[in-house]
Amino acid sequence: MSFKLLARSASRLPRLALAISRNSLPLASTYSQHSQYRHHSTKTVRLTAENYPDVKRDPRFAHLTDTDLAFFRSVVGDKQVITDSNDLAAYNEDWMRKYRGQSKVVLKPKSTSEISTLLKYCNEHLLAVVPQGGNTSLVGGSVPVFDEVVISVANLNRVRSFDETSGILKADSGVILENAESFLAEHGAVFPLDLGAKGSCFIGGNIATNAGGLRLLRYGSLHGSVLGLEAVLPDGTIYDSMHSLRKDNTGYDLKQLFIGSEGTLGIITGISILCPARPRSVNVAFLGLESYDKVRETFRRARADLCEILSAFEFMDRKSQVFASRFTGLPHPLAGEDNTDVPDYPFYVLIEVSGSNKEHDDAKLESFLESVMEDETVADGTVSQDETQLKTLWRWRESISEASTMFGGVFKYDVSLPLPKMYSLVDSVAERLKEKGLLSFEDSSKPVADAIGYGHIGDGNLHLNVCVREYAKEVEEALEPFVYEQVQANRGSISAEHGVGFQKKHYIQYSKSPVEIQMIKDLKKHYDPKGIMNPYKYI
Amino acid sequence: MSFKLLARSASRLPRLALAISRNSLPLASTYSQHSQYRHHSTKTVRLTAENYPDVKRDPRFAHLTDTDLAFFRSVVGDKQVITDSNDLAAYNEDWMRKYRGQSKVVLKPKSTSEISTLLKYCNEHLLAVVPQGGNTSLVGGSVPVFDEVVISVANLNRVRSFDETSGILKADSGVILENAESFLAEHGAVFPLDLGAKGSCFIGGNIATNAGGLRLLRYGSLHGSVLGLEAVLPDGTIYDSMHSLRKDNTGYDLKQLFIGSEGTLGIITGISILCPARPRSVNVAFLGLESYDKVRETFRRARADLCEILSAFEFMDRKSQVFASRFTGLPHPLAGEDNTDVPDYPFYVLIEVSGSNKEHDDAKLESFLESVMEDETVADGTVSQDETQLKTLWRWRESISEASTMFGGVFKYDVSLPLPKMYSLVDSVAERLKEKGLLSFEDSSKPVADAIGYGHIGDGNLHLNVCVREYAKEVEEALEPFVYEQVQANRGSISAEHGVGFQKKHYIQYSKSPVEIQMIKDLKKHYDPKGIMNPYKYI
Repeated sequence: MSFKLLARSASRLPRLALAISRNSLPLASTYSQHSQYRHHSTKTVRLTAENYPDVKRDPRFAHLTDTDLAFFRSVVGDKQVITDSNDLAAYNEDWMRKYRGQSKVVLKPKSTSEISTLLKYCNEHLLAVVPQGGNTSLVGGSVPVFDEVVISVANLNRVRSFDETSGILKADSGVILENAESFLAEHGAVFPLDLGAKGSCFIGGNIATNAGGLRLLRYGSLHGSVLGLEAVLPDGTIYDSMHSLRKDNTGYDLKQLFIGSEGTLGIITGISILCPARPRSVNVAFLGLESYDKVRETFRRARADLCEILSAFEFMDRKSQVFASRFTGLPHPLAGEDNTDVPDYPFYVLIEVSGSNKEHDDAKLESFLESVMEDETVADGTVSQDETQLKTLWRWRESISEASTMFGGVFKYDVSLPLPKMYSLVDSVAERLKEKGLLSFEDSSKPVADAIGYGHIGDGNLHLNVCVREYAKEVEEALEPFVYEQVQANRGSISAEHGVGFQKKHYIQYSKSPVEIQMIKDLKKHYDPKGIMNPYKYI
Repeated sequence: MSFKLLARSASRLPRLALAISRNSLPLASTYSQHSQYRHHSTKTVRLTAENYPDVKRDPRFAHLTDTDLAFFRSVVGDKQVITDSNDLAAYNEDWMRKYRGQSKVVLKPKSTSEISTLLKYCNEHLLAVVPQGGNTSLVGGSVPVFDEVVISVANLNRVRSFDETSGILKADSGVILENAESFLAEHGAVFPLDLGAKGSCFIGGNIATNAGGLRLLRYGSLHGSVLGLEAVLPDGTIYDSMHSLRKDNTGYDLKQLFIGSEGTLGIITGISILCPARPRSVNVAFLGLESYDKVRETFRRARADLCEILSAFEFMDRKSQVFASRFTGLPHPLAGEDNTDVPDYPFYVLIEVSGSNKEHDDAKLESFLESVMEDETVADGTVSQDETQLKTLWRWRESISEASTMFGGVFKYDVSLPLPKMYSLVDSVAERLKEKGLLSFEDSSKPVADAIGYGHIGDGNLHLNVCVREYAKEVEEALEPFVYEQVQANRGSISAEHGVGFQKKHYIQYSKSPVEIQMIKDLKKHYDPKGIMNPYKYI
């Protein structure tokens, strides 16, 4: 594959031939990492209860009885009550293979009213419940900790309706994101969210975790695009607010509470969501830059010059590209013909533009690139010529996550920080690990191979991956609470898009004030006074 | 002024010369109707307590004492405690001149902590409170009903910060929307909201009422663009969540509850909001169409063809244009040279596009117009040639509100309805009023001149104005609950953007189910157990 290289100075800049436009062209993130990643290790995951002996089973909760099972079977039918230990494994274990629960039953209801009956029963009998979607949580949010009853929404998987004029989709919560996306593509629309796990994750889980992903820069957060919701409260009450209205100013916007509640307030069963018109043209530019300040400056100018067609602005440090290069074995897009190594730029940027008119998009992107290269804000770059190249360029961003685990494992931090200070966190973490003699890329006796940074700069969202050869306790102690303290000092968020789940429950005070935490606790108690919904997590 | 007319068939379509682009070009709604409208009548407004004798003062609430006044003065200073009856008038009376309260004191604190001290005191002493911003509510939400203490945020009027890279504005809640807009224009950004009352309304009030307005189609709702909030709860607790993060997934998104809470949960004192890059070019097309179905079809195609540059899609029925024509005395933009009357098309559409490149926007708009005229979806049209013409075209949409009061008064309904059924509400209301012998445009002995419809079709938001010669009880009885029943039957909202306030408190059941209403009531009690915040309204 050959990329058309941009010259380093504008005077040598050739006319760019950009990617061909196709109505069916996929947007960002066509490269799914999910299935591969899940099975990278076959060793048994230790029980969460063993790994975290300080977390105790809440003695208030009842233990599952045969009477309970008989009731569950009467509601959802024998086949939708899973009790076989082999079958249970996939529901007890998380995608990261860090957590393993001990649930003895998984229920797979087929309707909202069945869920209502189940929850009412569990609430009355004090049976703790874990709602589960595609089980792709990165923070242990979707698996049981002890013997909670798992209620899966996998059987709620119908698209209910789509209105082509308004772009409003109504669907069950168990629809797989990729299926929703394929359905919408046929109707000239696009789901306002995209992420790596789209082949597995459910749209209900996306809403329950307020997933961010790759289209947030363009289409905004789910708090803006979700128009209606159907959910079952812990006591079995069905909250039906499946409106297809863009505007409704009558009363508090209750559905907002469920967006990002991670299954602690109830089970989302249906969503109504505004889906934008599908762009007809998508282009990607991949740039090399000489400093983080120039990354920021490039972003500022992309917002102004590319304005309405800017759909992604991702940045990667050089270290992340070195990992991706090793992992994929591919020549780097900005490497020379003879030398396929990752060039020396400390930072790389992937810019995606998408719009309704390919010629216009090409012209805007070209003019923008000319401008940022002329004054040397950007040092080098390339632009995709077709869909294959577009996917390949995205791969240099998307394979980082997998590549990070190449040496054995990874400590992943997903934080929000104000832009000016965003990258310095990676430097200070790397420095700290070096100071403690824990980090070396070359020396395999050190537990840490490197600390790399990348992410959605448009959203102020940094992914810090500390790539380790082993999960050493001293590494964890060097990182935590250090990382969280740094985030707190800069008024950032300790979880930009992955949520809180089990992993970050005890760190929320680094992002939220005591007043906020108390308000969150009060709301939890308000809606789930018995605390049966997704216990031991979130708050 | 001469407009370049589009020919009725595409073969005669001339090349369009569109409006010149300017960096400082204002977006939609530069024509403010506010000050003029406010003073269209000088007669005294009847007390709300007299007009609505069924609404009784809650005897639990304390009466203002000299001790209270002394305390208030000690907190905010003598000058910021208003007790003079002449000075109080403007705070007691609403913008529509339909409601008049009897408050004996208005407090104008200068800081969040002063508001905290005041609310804590009022809560402890059971003094009911009305938070007040620019007092431009259309539903009586911002004035007292009886003798509530008014707390105005007018003195909280500083822009706190603006970050040019991310576009995040932090400001006090009492900043006037137009001032925020001017400030942002200087920094290449735009407030993601615009509305007619912008010269008076406060951005805190915009958030408290979840204002919709003219940019929602492009920039989405405030639930998506508000990133952080600072508010004082009824007990004086300061909820400080002034984040400048696009992403923060730690805990329930509490700020969402305040967006659209209309002062019933606390007083918003600061906001952090994402402001998009300012478009460099704005164009407006004004079209005549032969049916409502063609309006919908035009919208469907505008979404697909104009996609990322579509910034407004407003529709107006012919009757609304007749009113606007009489009111402004201007020749209609689609009228011939000899005949300045409103042409016979039953529907008109105003399309605004805005983007970063004028040539591209012009080309897209031209190509779109050619396409919809070629197959006669659109019958006639004109495009603005410069900023003056752009404003004039907007005036045919924006003057409708004022024009509606020309005969004496207006019953305003602001509803959301699914698009297919949206306009039929206007027809059925007009028919009903005719059947009852109440409506005639010519016969001035009839109380109703006409029922007209217009609104933001992009948002499914219909404004139904029943223009009356007098506020006759039989007209009100013919309209209510009829209008609300129609909305309910179509699962619409009885208040798309104006909110609930005092006017619609007893009609919320037409938009919300018993479960939703109970949940709203429960939340109100959760945050304001003594019920001191903006009583007699909302829920």
